[in-house]
Amino acid sequence: MLSESDRQVTQKLAPQLAEVEARFAAELRSDLPCVNDLVLHVERYRGKMLRPTLVLVSAMACRGDRPPDDAHRIVATVAEMVHMATLVHDDILDEADLRRRGATINHLVGNEAAVMLGDYLISHAYHLCSSIGRADIARRIAFATNTVCEGELYQLANRNNWELDEATYYEIIRRKTASLCGECCRVAAFLCDDDMTSAELGRTAEALYTYGEKLGIAFQIVDDMLDLTGDAATVGKTLGRDLDKGKLTLPLIHFLSRAEGATRAQTLDLLHRRAGAETDEAFRLASLERLRAALSDSGAVAYARTAAERLIAEAKAALADNLPPGAARATLDRMADAVLTRNF
Amino acid sequence: MLSESDRQVTQKLAPQLAEVEARFAAELRSDLPCVNDLVLHVERYRGKMLRPTLVLVSAMACRGDRPPDDAHRIVATVAEMVHMATLVHDDILDEADLRRRGATINHLVGNEAAVMLGDYLISHAYHLCSSIGRADIARRIAFATNTVCEGELYQLANRNNWELDEATYYEIIRRKTASLCGECCRVAAFLCDDDMTSAELGRTAEALYTYGEKLGIAFQIVDDMLDLTGDAATVGKTLGRDLDKGKLTLPLIHFLSRAEGATRAQTLDLLHRRAGAETDEAFRLASLERLRAALSDSGAVAYARTAAERLIAEAKAALADNLPPGAARATLDRMADAVLTRNF
Repeated sequence: MLSESDRQVTQKLAPQLAEVEARFAAELRSDLPCVNDLVLHVERYRGKMLRPTLVLVSAMACRGDRPPDDAHRIVATVAEMVHMATLVHDDILDEADLRRRGATINHLVGNEAAVMLGDYLISHAYHLCSSIGRADIARRIAFATNTVCEGELYQLANRNNWELDEATYYEIIRRKTASLCGECCRVAAFLCDDDMTSAELGRTAEALYTYGEKLGIAFQIVDDMLDLTGDAATVGKTLGRDLDKGKLTLPLIHFLSRAEGATRAQTLDLLHRRAGAETDEAFRLASLERLRAALSDSGAVAYARTAAERLIAEAKAALADNLPPGAARATLDRMADAVLTRNF
Repeated sequence: MLSESDRQVTQKLAPQLAEVEARFAAELRSDLPCVNDLVLHVERYRGKMLRPTLVLVSAMACRGDRPPDDAHRIVATVAEMVHMATLVHDDILDEADLRRRGATINHLVGNEAAVMLGDYLISHAYHLCSSIGRADIARRIAFATNTVCEGELYQLANRNNWELDEATYYEIIRRKTASLCGECCRVAAFLCDDDMTSAELGRTAEALYTYGEKLGIAFQIVDDMLDLTGDAATVGKTLGRDLDKGKLTLPLIHFLSRAEGATRAQTLDLLHRRAGAETDEAFRLASLERLRAALSDSGAVAYARTAAERLIAEAKAALADNLPPGAARATLDRMADAVLTRNF
């Protein structure tokens, strides 16, 4: 249930997000029809627009709830392009066939076009980003993207590492997901440098980064949990994919770290056999069900959920301690809470 | 045989290129060992450093043969990173196993890490590019990269199009190869805006773009010819790959456009059968030999070579008409000539 102030922010936000969508499409338009055909597939990927929304609402929180300006909308579009590029390339890595209830681009047009289409998106993101004439902002966005790539490579290096520890798991998702969310919030502040003193700006920017980073980590924990505990029809993508691709997620990491000798050995054996049984659909489904039950019964799912809740509380505390109260700040709080209740 | 002035330029260039190499490695260094291990593979890809050299020598040609400054070296490094990223991703597209006499990254570490490693390179390229604080330069580099991606997508869309016409072939290679070469030369001029009047700058920049673009088109024609006419040991990569992947190149396009009814039908039939005979190594080699002989006998190879020679003459004429004579300009001429004699 939205509060009245939240409703006002959401109303101001709608035309801003519509502009982001329009610019996204306009920037990617090419004189080559074959390129435009591919770009249409990307627009179908469009989801919750989390990153653009983080930029725009953070900007409003920095400017006493006044609407964002054009530079914010451009950076919001850039963030969405970078994110879309990682989705397109992620789906190649994951050999995924389904994303947001639709076929993935690699499934539709092949891995080769998907590789190049992702590159086209990244390149256009930077091209658009350089149009605001702020090298400092471009550098921050590029740094966040460097970190996202590191996170992806770190995750790949730990594929089929069934001994993955919690600290490494957190470092992977901090880089691959949370760094860009944090930067989306922080650059929104740096683009408001006319509205604040330098001391205010520094404190606000860092608080927003903390908020975005913690929200991003919680988001990824919940996303990973859905792969194990969700319902395929609701989640809109194939379940158990993380497991199929040798990716451990928080409930399982916790379960394995706490399991007694025999249970641990049996679970590891099940994971190994499952990893080697790619074509045995019946075994894959049955083993997924066994794992889901074990995780749920042992409290490992609750453990992961509590970790996400704590991060969301910390994200909100960072705002409460450093940003003046206001309608946009309340919307940021509500966005953080929504990470925990999402079932998309 | 290098002239005395050319030797002087080459001597000045050596420490500049060494700095580019050092910065390339330093920029890509990560705190994650798994990332550094992958980056080492990229450094093995390092080839002739054509794009960095174009930036640096163009800069010298704009500044009366004085050495380039730091911004030029940074842009030279950026161009090499973008190029390396496209090589890494190209090899995934091409399913190539061999590049510059070494195993390709996709072959060594899998397509998944190769996708992400390419992204890591592109992202770092833009991160580095934003460090010179020139949004105009960043925007030009990003635009050239947009164009490179379009060229790759255009080429993919024409895979197995055995009716590809010459105009489309030229448009593909102009975008995927020549646009970045042209921009390397042009941005070198824009970074010398203190050394020239605005009118001089405009004329010099466009002449350098024309030079780089024509050199790039000629380079790609020759590169494509080597896939058909070269010697595997000298070329350092698998021959006939373009053909295997359904890519037509200039000699073949010309041959098919001139061939009489029966010859044309037989050749198309051979190409189709070859495309469908991926595992029949003996047939693939025999058909490659037949095609090589046909192209050579018909004058189609000579036709492509003449086209490359004409482009190189035009590239040099653009310089002669618009840049003052000097040692660096002479080196640019010699680099253009080298495109025709390369056997690497």
